Amino acid sequence: MTTPVLDVPPGLNGVAVAATALGDVRGEEGFFHYRQYDATTLARTRSFEDVWHLFVEGRLPDGSEEAAAFRAAAAPHRVVPAELRPLVEAVAASSAAPLARLKTVLSASAAALGLRPLVDLDSAGRKEQALAVAALTPAVLAALHRAAAGLPAIEPDPSLGHVAAYLYEATGARPDAAAVRALEQYLILTIDHGFNASTFTARVVASTGADLADVVSAAAGALAGPLHGGAPSRALDALDAIGSADRAADFVRSEIAAGRRIMGFGHPVYRTLDPRSTLLREIAVGLGGELVDRAVEVEAAILATLAELKPDRPLPSNVEYYAGVVMATLGLPRAMFTPTFAVSRTVGWCAHAVEQAGAGKVIRPGSRYVGPAIERAGAPERG
Amino acid sequence: MTTPVLDVPPGLNGVAVAATALGDVRGEEGFFHYRQYDATTLARTRSFEDVWHLFVEGRLPDGSEEAAAFRAAAAPHRVVPAELRPLVEAVAASSAAPLARLKTVLSASAAALGLRPLVDLDSAGRKEQALAVAALTPAVLAALHRAAAGLPAIEPDPSLGHVAAYLYEATGARPDAAAVRALEQYLILTIDHGFNASTFTARVVASTGADLADVVSAAAGALAGPLHGGAPSRALDALDAIGSADRAADFVRSEIAAGRRIMGFGHPVYRTLDPRSTLLREIAVGLGGELVDRAVEVEAAILATLAELKPDRPLPSNVEYYAGVVMATLGLPRAMFTPTFAVSRTVGWCAHAVEQAGAGKVIRPGSRYVGPAIERAGAPERG
Repeated sequence: MTTPVLDVPPGLNGVAVAATALGDVRGEEGFFHYRQYDATTLARTRSFEDVWHLFVEGRLPDGSEEAAAFRAAAAPHRVVPAELRPLVEAVAASSAAPLARLKTVLSASAAALGLRPLVDLDSAGRKEQALAVAALTPAVLAALHRAAAGLPAIEPDPSLGHVAAYLYEATGARPDAAAVRALEQYLILTIDHGFNASTFTARVVASTGADLADVVSAAAGALAGPLHGGAPSRALDALDAIGSADRAADFVRSEIAAGRRIMGFGHPVYRTLDPRSTLLREIAVGLGGELVDRAVEVEAAILATLAELKPDRPLPSNVEYYAGVVMATLGLPRAMFTPTFAVSRTVGWCAHAVEQAGAGKVIRPGSRYVGPAIERAGAPERG
Repeated sequence: MTTPVLDVPPGLNGVAVAATALGDVRGEEGFFHYRQYDATTLARTRSFEDVWHLFVEGRLPDGSEEAAAFRAAAAPHRVVPAELRPLVEAVAASSAAPLARLKTVLSASAAALGLRPLVDLDSAGRKEQALAVAALTPAVLAALHRAAAGLPAIEPDPSLGHVAAYLYEATGARPDAAAVRALEQYLILTIDHGFNASTFTARVVASTGADLADVVSAAAGALAGPLHGGAPSRALDALDAIGSADRAADFVRSEIAAGRRIMGFGHPVYRTLDPRSTLLREIAVGLGGELVDRAVEVEAAILATLAELKPDRPLPSNVEYYAGVVMATLGLPRAMFTPTFAVSRTVGWCAHAVEQAGAGKVIRPGSRYVGPAIERAGAPERG
């Protein structure tokens, strides 16, 4: 009923709003997992499609044959339907931000993909549509990028893996294996991460039985919020502003003095270290280059200064810090960083949506009215 | 931190997730209010703009001068920006559902409207942008409807009130005063209604500091869910299927026997009566006509049969039952019913977003992991 029985902390921090088998984040331990597996181990040892299979099917592929079959099943969905092409052109010609463009096309994609309300689908239908939406996302993003830049669309190559196909369709060049593997590891690391605001948005929308286009476009809207995180370009902007490591301490001091946060450092959940950052540093170092070398030096200088200025508040480098460095090194333009993050997170959003839809209960919380006393006079229809 | 400290009921029913001064729903009493005022009294006695002012400014207009100034401030925003016109054409030409079309254009509207992230705006800026987005919504909906039907767009008439302008721009005909007032009362009644799933979606997205285009398009995605409610066309479809009152009992019996719900009856919160339905019945009867007469007779027959079949489960007629009857009587096509509902609810969504953004805290709940035991081996970066 509507009478609130339970007040909970603002932001719902520490409130377990749902049961999930998809994974968890253990902030105090610097650890997160996808289903039963350490997510960083999956990123080290598995392909993107293997982990995607884990989210869709609830288990890793059973051998290389099943892995190949899943990859083959996903590939045909990596095509922008003809019906969406005029929309892609119109959106690409607008002045909307790249993430807003992506979510706008996703918002319109239900009819073109044959998506149906989750409530009208059985478990197999939900899995199938989750696969289709997550497969479409990078194709739409690449098509938007090409159209906005006045470049011709790249014909999809179904022989490529999911991540290689995205890089190929976005840049127009056949990416080398090291670049694909670096981006693949980043994207595996960012598929899911607890009930952050965008993932929770996906679950609330899915709880109404809406379709997956409604779900992912809504979640992408939450991801667009500056307080959500997920904007690796900001960390790279800060790295640009700093320039070289010898200027990092002054930069941090003046930002902190001005009451601003240092982009790329600190996380609402991780206190000791962000395990995604640890692995991304390795990935970046593996790619190498001037930007990477500088990022490593600047990171050390920033951490030292933050430890001095904020001894009681651990501010480890977060996923955004090296994400921007990795994507820039791979040749992705800065405007594509957050939408690229959405490419992998869409896999997570869809899995959460399918799980939530299976629970069959609309999320409709209560609230605590704190306004002026209600004026009840003059309500003739109340007996 | 991430360790859940508190498990709450699924769907968060009865959990007060936020404090709000915007209003409340008291289901047991068949009563809901906007700020301190009985919502049905506002619908009986006030203009749409007066109640809109209440949501934006926190109080009713102080006299007719302030009311006129608010109306004059809203009118210029009721125009589809030139930048969005190609998008409206592309979306109207697609096979997307009407609500999906509306949310798609809203999703893309941030840049054209100059919307900024809520977190970057002060209180005055948030109010101003909330006004702009809610004013734009009916203009976009009317433009989409005209374009999809191959009809020329109607030039906005800034001298009209908000609801008259919508009816004029959608139908191309100058509506009579009784029609405008009937729709106006319906739209006042549906501006807000507690923390339903779409409103909660708006608040979760707003909590990230995203812009109001992100907020309202995400909320509209939740509204699209069949379990959310807000689809008056379904109730009208049921009325069509029944035909005349003498067939209502058989219809209800066979639907209940098949395990289906009767569209237009029952509400998750109201047990005794839905006060919106009570007033909408009056409004419909005021408009009159064959459909209204039949709806009144069928309603009585359905309620009698439901009382017999489900004596322990009150299933009062809900807001959807007469909403469809009223909108059909006004000449709105069935496909426009739910998007028209979104026209007024956008005012509520924006007010909730502004309130939530003011709280300055990202909504990031915890969860309860219920999957297989975590396999911790092979996580070399964990010390």
